[in-house]
Amino acid sequence: MTGTQLIGSKDSVESGNTFKAFNPATGETLEPPFHEATESEVDAAMSLAAEAAPVLRSSSGERLGQLCDTIADALDTVKPKLLARCALETGYPEARLNGEFARTVGQMRAFAAIAREGAWRQPRIDHGDPARQPLPKPDVRSLLVPLGPVAVFGASNFPLALPAAGGDTASALAAGCPVVVKGHPSHPGTCEIAARAIAAAVAECGFPEGTFSMVQGVSNAVGIALTRHPKTAAVGFTGSLRGGRALFDLAAARPTPIPVYAEMGSVNPQFVLDAKLAADPEGFAAALYGSATLGNGQFCTNPGLVFVPEGRGCDAFLARYRGLVEGASPAPMLNLGIQSGFEEGLGKLEHLPGVVLTRGPASGEGFTAGPALVAMNLETFEAHRHTVEEEVFGPSTVVVTCPDSADFPRVAAGFPGQLAGSVHGTAEDLAQGRDLIDTLARFAGRVCVNGFPTGIEICHAMHHGGLYPAATDAHHTSIGLGAIARWGRPVSYQDLPDHLLPDALKEANPLHLVRLVDGELRR
Amino acid sequence: MTGTQLIGSKDSVESGNTFKAFNPATGETLEPPFHEATESEVDAAMSLAAEAAPVLRSSSGERLGQLCDTIADALDTVKPKLLARCALETGYPEARLNGEFARTVGQMRAFAAIAREGAWRQPRIDHGDPARQPLPKPDVRSLLVPLGPVAVFGASNFPLALPAAGGDTASALAAGCPVVVKGHPSHPGTCEIAARAIAAAVAECGFPEGTFSMVQGVSNAVGIALTRHPKTAAVGFTGSLRGGRALFDLAAARPTPIPVYAEMGSVNPQFVLDAKLAADPEGFAAALYGSATLGNGQFCTNPGLVFVPEGRGCDAFLARYRGLVEGASPAPMLNLGIQSGFEEGLGKLEHLPGVVLTRGPASGEGFTAGPALVAMNLETFEAHRHTVEEEVFGPSTVVVTCPDSADFPRVAAGFPGQLAGSVHGTAEDLAQGRDLIDTLARFAGRVCVNGFPTGIEICHAMHHGGLYPAATDAHHTSIGLGAIARWGRPVSYQDLPDHLLPDALKEANPLHLVRLVDGELRR
Repeated sequence: MTGTQLIGSKDSVESGNTFKAFNPATGETLEPPFHEATESEVDAAMSLAAEAAPVLRSSSGERLGQLCDTIADALDTVKPKLLARCALETGYPEARLNGEFARTVGQMRAFAAIAREGAWRQPRIDHGDPARQPLPKPDVRSLLVPLGPVAVFGASNFPLALPAAGGDTASALAAGCPVVVKGHPSHPGTCEIAARAIAAAVAECGFPEGTFSMVQGVSNAVGIALTRHPKTAAVGFTGSLRGGRALFDLAAARPTPIPVYAEMGSVNPQFVLDAKLAADPEGFAAALYGSATLGNGQFCTNPGLVFVPEGRGCDAFLARYRGLVEGASPAPMLNLGIQSGFEEGLGKLEHLPGVVLTRGPASGEGFTAGPALVAMNLETFEAHRHTVEEEVFGPSTVVVTCPDSADFPRVAAGFPGQLAGSVHGTAEDLAQGRDLIDTLARFAGRVCVNGFPTGIEICHAMHHGGLYPAATDAHHTSIGLGAIARWGRPVSYQDLPDHLLPDALKEANPLHLVRLVDGELRR
Repeated sequence: MTGTQLIGSKDSVESGNTFKAFNPATGETLEPPFHEATESEVDAAMSLAAEAAPVLRSSSGERLGQLCDTIADALDTVKPKLLARCALETGYPEARLNGEFARTVGQMRAFAAIAREGAWRQPRIDHGDPARQPLPKPDVRSLLVPLGPVAVFGASNFPLALPAAGGDTASALAAGCPVVVKGHPSHPGTCEIAARAIAAAVAECGFPEGTFSMVQGVSNAVGIALTRHPKTAAVGFTGSLRGGRALFDLAAARPTPIPVYAEMGSVNPQFVLDAKLAADPEGFAAALYGSATLGNGQFCTNPGLVFVPEGRGCDAFLARYRGLVEGASPAPMLNLGIQSGFEEGLGKLEHLPGVVLTRGPASGEGFTAGPALVAMNLETFEAHRHTVEEEVFGPSTVVVTCPDSADFPRVAAGFPGQLAGSVHGTAEDLAQGRDLIDTLARFAGRVCVNGFPTGIEICHAMHHGGLYPAATDAHHTSIGLGAIARWGRPVSYQDLPDHLLPDALKEANPLHLVRLVDGELRR
């Protein structure tokens, strides 16, 4: 670890401004110092990326797949060093780090397979007909081509699966887009170790050095320079609403606007139906608690707002949840900002009328926080829903007790965009559940039944996004195999001789792709 | 024709401000007066649309297909009245109107078929595995759901195929999104006739009246109110860069940003290779002339900028083109603004160094203009390319004579986003054409060989869009069957009991869709 920028294959230090990471479990600073990237370093990284873009663009899916697999291998090699530093920078326990590492490498390999398979490029062929009247029909073929250099901003809460080697980078490289990553200031060392592994893999595979670069910074200036750079073609971001919206606004105001795929979190409302709550109120409390406090609550898919009927089981549910909260020890939050944001968020809720706040024991050391339960009734929620709908990032959840679960569809109808929402019910409850499910699907990117949305499966059908303010572009997902679609745009080729067509569109189908040919899917 | 707004099933007149259409062939005003929509009329239309949205959303593809087919039938019924008024408002000849009408009805029926077939909703299923270690795998299924109410702005140049009953409306209704159309002030009567046919079809099919509304206006206020309305979920626009960018900026600045799919035109560069030009310079001139003056040049896919090598055939090509221009009669432009914009655009080009401008005879009547040829050399183009790359909307084309066709890839590399571009060459020329094709594909939404991009085939593989400033969202097409994808966003359903899933995702596949099941396409 050097604390420098990694511009292609070279280390770069232009600024004397440095920052250090913290160990959130102790509050102590960690060596080495990291240098802030300058605007000219951002320019150098993006210019190299733009030089690399035509090479990646013309690379086969096979070659791009090799690159992603080689990166996965390189990550495996540095795993001990990577996880040791990551533990220091995040305070995450070993099991969590191992799980996240497995997901990170797994998704890199999954995107390698997607790149090789090639269906994501949506090849389409409409054959011509020179004899058609009144005009000949042209031969038209289309596929997705890579957008070009992508700037990636990772969030604090997934030090492995989001920034340097995370899903945005993996999907962008698999699509044939060069990447410039901005390391997250909470874990710059983790980012640097992963970035060096990626750069080594880029070199090993013979791709141009501009294929991947990494810049560091705590100030907003680095992100602004990346987003405004004329060669940046798109932005991937995971983090706060404030941060995502700021980048979105910058990108929209450019002379040439570019897409910003920002995933910005939400409260992910949970609706618990009567028989479900009555059947096992304590078991449900324990399950909810497990989800709401996983990773000390630092998940954008946390169940932050739970609606329960006031009938049978409600008191037992609340009592059990309170007991769990009161018996819990504080755990590290990722950084001081998140810790103080958590306390501020709870402070806002605590003062709403009739709210009962339950906290566990406090701790004096590091940036720690323990779980919290915020209980209120439906009247308070409805009078203050704009406040309650704001995400409180951390191990808290808000439980809203409702006179009648029949109110749930009406309550749900008022939600702004959410990443996810759930309905919890027995078979009996769910017989009448269609309305509520449909209402959730109007605002949520993902609707779950009898499960919490906290875990995100990496598969074709996963959508992790949603209407604003959960995300800036509801058409696209930031996690799951469909995330690669963000980095390609369609191009049509009209009446090209076969030898000038991209291989994916040649008549003989040399890549053996499934293609939409004259409206029919065919291999 | 009443000149009123059509808010659902009711006529509405709130403002005394009126405007009239013009006959561009004579410059005379046409009756009746049309009332400007007020902000409260826009609100009424959008509020009705929002009420209709859940009904459309839960309607089957079969029902939405019926709606589109019924609209097509209704358009057939009003065809004589519609085309008579349209001829007055546009000055288009009968053949053009018949052709555009056929396309309009054809694309409405094509979207009916797309709605019925259902593949556009991209159903995906990833089966769960409760036994998976370390964590059970959830069952995750996804499909596109309609975004909600769409505001449609049609362009002046396609009075039938773009506004009221055009491709935006057809694709949005087929996707299950209610539509509020703003009539174009150049042909408000055409729009009203088409809108009434649509509204009648909506009623006949038993859809809620808010499914379709139409408002009129010459002022920007109507468009601003539509774009800012909190219930508007997306905007479809075809027209000028200035207009499209203004709506894009408004939409991005909303508290809840929404997508604006604006197609804003371009110069669509044409590159003519040596042997092609030498083989038949006069024939090529005639073909180019035919494309550049089709519809009096009022196509966003017009070949506005043509690069030719200075070698054999160049003089004969220019001489023939000049002869055609000098012998042509002026024809009506769509409105006074377009006519004066055309003259201003030519004026800017005329004063560049070494430019030779050729015009035909002038005419005194109506808003007419005749074709024009602007010839310059590569040096002038390179010194002033930002000026020359601005679209001059009308029957002109710029020919840039180049010392060597080997310069074409370098010249092409500097282009901003374009709807289309072409390479013209013999088999011999094209043997070396890969570089140039690849360069065009970096900025253009469509690349043609030996053809002009003016005509747009309605098919699966057609992409009519491109990087900014050709369009505001390079991922999406405004024409072609893929245009429906603009109006849907993915939603994932996790662990839902089968009976609560949308039909498209039920295990037994009751809609017989092709679906991506565990990564394999299956019916």
